[in-house]
Order: sequence, then structure tokens, then C-alpha cells
Amino acid sequence: MDPTSFATEPSRYHHWKLSIDGEIARLVMAVDDAHPHRPGYELKLNSYDLSVDIELADALLRVRFEHPEVKTLVITAELDRVFCSGANIYMLGLSTHSFKVNFCKFTNETRLYLEEMSSDSGVKSLAACKGTTAGGGYELALACDEILLVDDGNSAVSFPETPLLAVLPGTGGLTRLVDKRKVRRDRADVFCTVAEGIKGKRAKDWGLVDGVVPRSKWDETVNARAKAIASAAPALPRGPAVKLPVVAPENYRYVRFQADRDARTGTIMISGPEAAPPADLATAELWSLRAFRELDDALLQLRFNYPEIGVVTLRTRGDRALVLAHDEALHKAQTGFAREVRLLQKRVLKRLDNTARSLFAVADDPSSCFAGVLLEVALAADRFYMLIDGDEQIAVATSAANGGPMPTATGMTRLEARFYGTPDQVGKVLARGKEGAIASEEAEQLGLATIAADDIDFADELRIAIEERASLSPDALTGMEASLRFVGPETLETKIFGRLSAWQNWIFTRPNSTGQTGALTLYGRPERPSFNWNRT
Amino acid sequence: MDPTSFATEPSRYHHWKLSIDGEIARLVMAVDDAHPHRPGYELKLNSYDLSVDIELADALLRVRFEHPEVKTLVITAELDRVFCSGANIYMLGLSTHSFKVNFCKFTNETRLYLEEMSSDSGVKSLAACKGTTAGGGYELALACDEILLVDDGNSAVSFPETPLLAVLPGTGGLTRLVDKRKVRRDRADVFCTVAEGIKGKRAKDWGLVDGVVPRSKWDETVNARAKAIASAAPALPRGPAVKLPVVAPENYRYVRFQADRDARTGTIMISGPEAAPPADLATAELWSLRAFRELDDALLQLRFNYPEIGVVTLRTRGDRALVLAHDEALHKAQTGFAREVRLLQKRVLKRLDNTARSLFAVADDPSSCFAGVLLEVALAADRFYMLIDGDEQIAVATSAANGGPMPTATGMTRLEARFYGTPDQVGKVLARGKEGAIASEEAEQLGLATIAADDIDFADELRIAIEERASLSPDALTGMEASLRFVGPETLETKIFGRLSAWQNWIFTRPNSTGQTGALTLYGRPERPSFNWNRT
Repeated sequence: MDPTSFATEPSRYHHWKLSIDGEIARLVMAVDDAHPHRPGYELKLNSYDLSVDIELADALLRVRFEHPEVKTLVITAELDRVFCSGANIYMLGLSTHSFKVNFCKFTNETRLYLEEMSSDSGVKSLAACKGTTAGGGYELALACDEILLVDDGNSAVSFPETPLLAVLPGTGGLTRLVDKRKVRRDRADVFCTVAEGIKGKRAKDWGLVDGVVPRSKWDETVNARAKAIASAAPALPRGPAVKLPVVAPENYRYVRFQADRDARTGTIMISGPEAAPPADLATAELWSLRAFRELDDALLQLRFNYPEIGVVTLRTRGDRALVLAHDEALHKAQTGFAREVRLLQKRVLKRLDNTARSLFAVADDPSSCFAGVLLEVALAADRFYMLIDGDEQIAVATSAANGGPMPTATGMTRLEARFYGTPDQVGKVLARGKEGAIASEEAEQLGLATIAADDIDFADELRIAIEERASLSPDALTGMEASLRFVGPETLETKIFGRLSAWQNWIFTRPNSTGQTGALTLYGRPERPSFNWNRT
Repeated sequence: MDPTSFATEPSRYHHWKLSIDGEIARLVMAVDDAHPHRPGYELKLNSYDLSVDIELADALLRVRFEHPEVKTLVITAELDRVFCSGANIYMLGLSTHSFKVNFCKFTNETRLYLEEMSSDSGVKSLAACKGTTAGGGYELALACDEILLVDDGNSAVSFPETPLLAVLPGTGGLTRLVDKRKVRRDRADVFCTVAEGIKGKRAKDWGLVDGVVPRSKWDETVNARAKAIASAAPALPRGPAVKLPVVAPENYRYVRFQADRDARTGTIMISGPEAAPPADLATAELWSLRAFRELDDALLQLRFNYPEIGVVTLRTRGDRALVLAHDEALHKAQTGFAREVRLLQKRVLKRLDNTARSLFAVADDPSSCFAGVLLEVALAADRFYMLIDGDEQIAVATSAANGGPMPTATGMTRLEARFYGTPDQVGKVLARGKEGAIASEEAEQLGLATIAADDIDFADELRIAIEERASLSPDALTGMEASLRFVGPETLETKIFGRLSAWQNWIFTRPNSTGQTGALTLYGRPERPSFNWNRT
């Protein structure tokens, strides 16, 4: 099977139409049923698969960077009677467990990015649902700031997953229903078990949608709301616009991903910038942007195309001072473009936090440059190994990137998460970092490095740690890392990845959904599913 | 197979020895390997199964009620070189998925009760680990306020679950490690993958234990710490002591559980008190205590002995005024005993929240009495159905129990959780409740009832709702309810049940642990496990 590619741009889209009209962008879902991600099913009724969602993620990125004037994003559909019927069931039925889980994770990330666009970039979103809005379709709407539903006596919002498919809405729907929209939990219980959904006035009364609009007034109402939302959008710096080239493994400049499929290990090597930041940062080739777009693509490659790679070492090479110079320029800049680059770095680091592989950061060469935003990469790792070299060339360094702008999903920074038990240490490390680079031995004493060792021990210790890690059960490691990485407070975001996704993973493996007589397996066939009735 | 019984008392214990010496209680784990919960395995090396944990839960309850003078609970072991080697692996290997999940849930509840005894009842706990403290043994220690480990060059604390068994520590260990003891997450990562664990000074330095003590000074140091902890215990009302009779289904007075195994439905009927509260509340037969001990037992019967019952209707009958009178007496009383009864009610209601069955509260008879603490039962349910009767006999009522003392695991009350989207409604409902009972129609308007219907529709609507619910996949319902019930903030407690347990449920169903060549299946056999290496 061909590896999955995440490289796209609007001219290549099969499933979405993006148009810009001043402050308002319209993203129209027009799924081409003949272009599924893999052969074997048709994408009927605006149902989506990974290929549809890859385009959606790309479109959101392009609105941010290429159309900074946009203040309202209207998400709507080309079909007259269907907004979106959710994730394609046949695709789910044909997929491996690993694909299903990673598909859900990716779609969840994209929906969280939509919400971040609203909270941090001042682009508000309006789901204009002129027809059936089912399952993942309603979950997409829930990720928008506002939901309008056509009131035609027929169109409903619904979560048919539990009653029809014996699974959960897998894209944050349950959490957003009660935690974001704050629908009363007993009403949510009713809603989630009524396959046909809820429409009209009741949908509005229960808080499932923000408004219901007759078909005759649809266009005028949606346009008026889009304009009103744009008028109320926050006054943030916007632009300048920068066109984004397509990023794909064959054109990486700063990232190299190497896999050893037999050993089930891989290495992501990130190179620092070659030169000082340009006076005008606004270019797609800016290291801070380009390197993190490549890292993002590499993480997706790893998730979808290298499922057997269990341990990934994260390495860096380059000039620490140049990394810090890029951080400084980026964090001083007041433009909308600079903000978007910072937010992109933040999202990519979160993608790293959420990547279910054992991550060991390694600094064992004087050319390593875990500085500033690249130190965040090391802090995201499960462990950080540093070689103690005689002349203290191997060192880490801090920048403004470590002090707040790159929070994790819990809301804490990576330093705050690391020093959850000794919060004073955060300030100490940042203060020490202002005085200059921190060599391996001191980094270990400060709690930044997990293990610092000298030449005699280092290589063996690291090799054994990687071999041992690669020998452990991948499932147990996934559960362990998901519990240890997200120390501290939970948020809507961590609830989606930690609670909802964990339940969905379980349900996806249970015979009632994916067994021979499971509901997901038999969907669309005449046979009725047959369940094991034991509750747990 | 005989149904599991939860009825015990110290004279019947096989596995623990409880002794009281003034302010200090000693609970000595001395597992009798010849008395497992089910035949088929031996409980060697102080490993535990459900029968061991049922006694532990009983012992904690008896310290609270029968020995209110106790300020320090020392948990230790009779074996000289082993504190506790954790949950018995052969028991896990022989168990159904449903049993494993419910076993973990019960043991988790007991450990949270130990922590509540510290925070709310002023009984601090000291884990005195004079030997190997592995897996569930270390998790039991983590639930204590303080951990002392013998420093003999051999005894370690450890989590061998991931490296040896391809599962997670299932009793809150991962969460307590980083969230309670705030062990640095990269060190926790190392600790959780080193099967032999960590001992001596490093265990202390990493925060895994609070002290390490040489064997020669063990007894004197443990005794001195126990006394010091007792001296520092908070000054709370204590007692009077009340001896607790054994509660079992055959002697229930206030609770009736009826199951229809063919329809996969059941009913829990709770009767209110027959008379006003006695002047001296301190009796084991006090309705507030007795009825909730019975409800607790019924919930455990349901979980372990009726796995196929998917939908449970919760009903009440009795005199609302008498329920309110008992609540009032209980919440006015300043004694330690009254506090313990309130805390027991709180724990039983949480056990209800955590019971993975669909719960429909039903008030369809004028004799129903969802008042005060019994209104909490209705608010814990997924839905609340009320019949609108002509003369408004069917009604709910509030008491002090609804205002704060019965918080859920999130820290919010059940009213706060219900009105998460409209927080003002909490005060409105409580104010309205002070004016008198709230009949069905008004209860629906206020948002207390999910559905109120009159005679013409009620019976059919309820019957169809129950039949439909009983027809849905149990697994999907468990995941759905776990997502909708715990709206709002997450806590250590909800993390254990919602995040950690969900991951463990998933891991328990994966071939790498429980398949034919899984690590849990092959434990103790010469064959090596064989894993599917795909990460998800």
C-alpha cells in the first residue's frame, strides 16, 4: 500500500472548496465520493475519511497564513440536504485498529486547531448546517464557535454512533457536548442514544445548536451572522500574508527521519537554522516555520506509515546561538505572521506530546542544539539523555519559548509539567538559562536531563535503554505514557485525548463493535449485530 | 459458581490482622495462600485477590466506626521480607475481562477511601514496607500518607506490570506517582519500566518513598513515626464508637434488589425510614447508615454477580418528611459518628456514580421519596423519569445533603454537575426546595427531572426507554456514560477512573496481555510472550 501523504494545497483538493470574500472565508465540504483515502468504499453523503481531513487541516493552515484578513470562517456543505454524515463507516470497518486510533487522533487535533484559531488567532467559525448533521459531522460543528441548523422539519443533529454502531462519537463529541456547550448531562444521555437525533426548536432549547433557521431565510441569515461575527472579532495583528509551499519528506530541509524497521526504532534529527533570522521574518522559508512544518509532517509519517517503530530518539544539530536568535526574533515580532508561527510551533509540540511512541531525546554530540524551542522537544520526550563531554560543549539553552508561549494541553508549560513537584525550579531554570548555556552535568542536577553520563558509560546505557524499551509491549507503553505525560490539571483537550479516546480505543477492540457479529462490522449489511451483554 | 459475598468482620478475616493500641491501629497483611477468592491459584508472597481486598475495605470501615480513637493506621505485613507483591497474577490470568475491570474498580475505591480517611476523618496512614513492595503492593503504599521502606540492600518498591506483564499498574499507581507524590515524569518513566524497582537512597531521592530505614532500627522507627503522626493528627470530633453488624442481601431492611436476567434489567428499591430519627443517633441501625450500607452492598452485588444486567431503575418508597428529618438530624449533629455516616453516604453515592450500568431513576408512585440524600440518588442517575399525577403527590424535596456534603469525584455537587451550563440554577433549586416539595411538572421545568409525563404517556415512554437502552452495546454505553457523567474538572480520583482505568481496560483486551501468547497469559510459564509490535 502506498504510504499516506499529507502534502496538499487548495488546487489539489478533492473534497473541499475554499473561497475568500474579504473578512469571510467559506470552506465548503463537497466530498468527491470517488476519491477515498484507500480503494474499497465510496464517500457518500459527505462522509469523510483521512483524505478529507488532511485537506481540512491544510485549509485551516492556509486561512491562517495566506488569508490573514479573514475573521469569520463559515464551514458549510455543497449538498442541499446533508451537511456531513460523519466518518465513513465502511472506511472504519475496513481499517486496522492502529489506523482507526490514529485517524481519530488526527481528526481530533484538527478540530482543536479550529478552536485555537478562534481563541488565539481571532478567526471565529460558523458551522452552517443546511441538512443532516450526523456523528462526526456534528462533532465538526461542535468545534465551531457557533452552529446554525436549518429548520425544515427533517434536518437534525445526531450522534448515532452508540445506538447504530456500538462505538462512541470519536472526535471529541461527548466531551464538547457537556464540557464545552454544557448541555445538561441527562439530556446529553438522551441525545446520544437517539439515532435519528434532535431537530428544530428542541435542538436549540437543549443547547445543541445556537439557532435554527427556515430554509427560505437560510442564505441571508448565514451571511448576516458571518458578517456580525466578523465585526465582533478581536482586534489582533493580522498578516502579512505568506504563501505556504507544500511540505513533504522528499523536500525536507531541516528534518530527517530514519527508521530501522527491524529494530523497531527511529530517529528524528532536527537541524537548526543556517543563518541569523532575516530582517523581514515573513517568509515561508523562515527556519522557525519551515522546520516545524517538516517536524509536523514527520510525526504524521511516523504515526501512519511506520506503525511498528516503537522508540524514537529525538536529536538536534546546529548552532545553539542561531536557534536562540530565531526564537528571539520570533518572540519580539508583533505581526500576525509571527504569532501564527509561534502557534504553529505550539501545535507541533503538542502533536509530539500526543504521539504514542516512546520518545528519548539524546544530546551526545557537541553539535546538538537543544535550545529554546528545541529544548521544548527534549522536554516533551519521555526521557532526556545527555553525554557529559570534557569541555562542556554539549549543553542546553533557554529562550522566551520556554517561559510560556508553548503550553501543553494541560495549560502548563513543559517546564511546569517537569517540575510539578518543585514549582520553584521553573523560575530557577529560566533564571539560570539567562546566564548562558547549561552543560550536561548541570542540566542533570537542575532536573532537565534524566540521565547524564560520561563517555565510558553513555553509549552502553543509551543502547540498553533503547533495546529494553523496544522490547516492551506497545499497548502497555501507550497507556503508561498517556498517564505519565499529562501530569497535572485536565482540560477539555486532555479529556478528549486521555479519557474519551482511551474509552474509544477499548470499544474499538471489543467484539460488540469490531467482532464478526459486531455492529461496526455488519453496518450496511442485512444481518443484525449480536452482542455479548456483560457490562463491565 | 457461588456469588461473591462482601459480608465479613474481623473474626472472619483470613488475610488481615487488625489490632488497636490506643491512637494507633495496626493492620497487618498476612495473606493465607490457601484461601483465594476462587479455587485455582495460591495467594503466595502476600499477593492479593478480591477476597483480600474485601477484608481490607471492611477493616477500614471498622476503624472509622468501631475505633474512633485511632489517629494513625499502620499498614504493614507479617512476612519479614515481603510487604506485598501486588495483585495475584494467576487470579488475573484466570479471570474474565468483566471481573478484572470490576476487581480493579473495587480496589481503586478502597484506596481512595484510605485517602478520604486521612483528609476527612483525621486518620493518617503509614505504609511500613519491610520488604519487597511490588505492583499493587506499592500502589497500596502510595494511597497512604507516608511510606517507609526498609533499607536492606534488597527491598525495593517497583511497578513490574509494564515490563513483565504488558499491563499497567491498575490501582491508581501511575496517577499517584506523578500527580500525588509528584515524582518527576521522566524519572517515573524510568521507574515504571525497571522490573526490579528502585531501592534505598534513590527511592527516597526520587520521592518514591518518604524514608528508608535499616532493618536494625525498623520497629523503633516505625513506632516513633506512628506516634508522631498521631500527635500531629487534626483535632476532630471522634466517636462514639458503634459496632457494625454484617450486612448481606439476606438481612437487608431498606434495600431490595430485583433482577430480570432475561430482560437484562434490574430495580433497586430504597425504602425511607419508618420513624423519626432517634435522639441518640449513634446506632448501627440508624436509617442513614443502615440503608446506605445496604445500598453499597447491593451495588457490589450488581457489579460482581449480575454482569448481564444493563439497565437499573432506581426507585424509592417511604415518607419524604422522614428522610428529610434524618438528613436534618445527621447534618446538625457534631459527633464523629455523624460525620462518618455522612462520609459513608458520600462514598456510596460515588460508588453509584462509578457503577457501569445505565441508571434510570423513576418516581411514578405517590409513595416515592426522592428527598435530600435520596434526591442525590436520582441526580446520580443518567436520567430521571417522573410521573405527573393529578394531585402532585409525586415530588422531590431538598435538604442540607444537596448543598455540599455529598460532592462527586470531580469536587462538584450533583446539582452543580447537573447545572454546569446554568450555575445560577443550583441556588434557585436549593432556595425553592426550602419552600417545600417540588412536584413532577415543576421538577422538570427546574431541570431536576429529565422527563415528566402524565398517566397517558408515562408507562409506555419509560418501558420503551428501558427496552431501547437494554438493546444497546454494553461497551459503548460504558464509554458514553463515563464521558457524560463526569462533566467538569478532573481530579486525581476521576483521572484514576476515567483515564488510567480506560487505558487499562483497553490493554486488558489486547492480545499482547491476554492473548494466547500474551504476557499476562504466559506469566509463570517457561514460554516467552510474543507481541504484535504495532503502536497505535
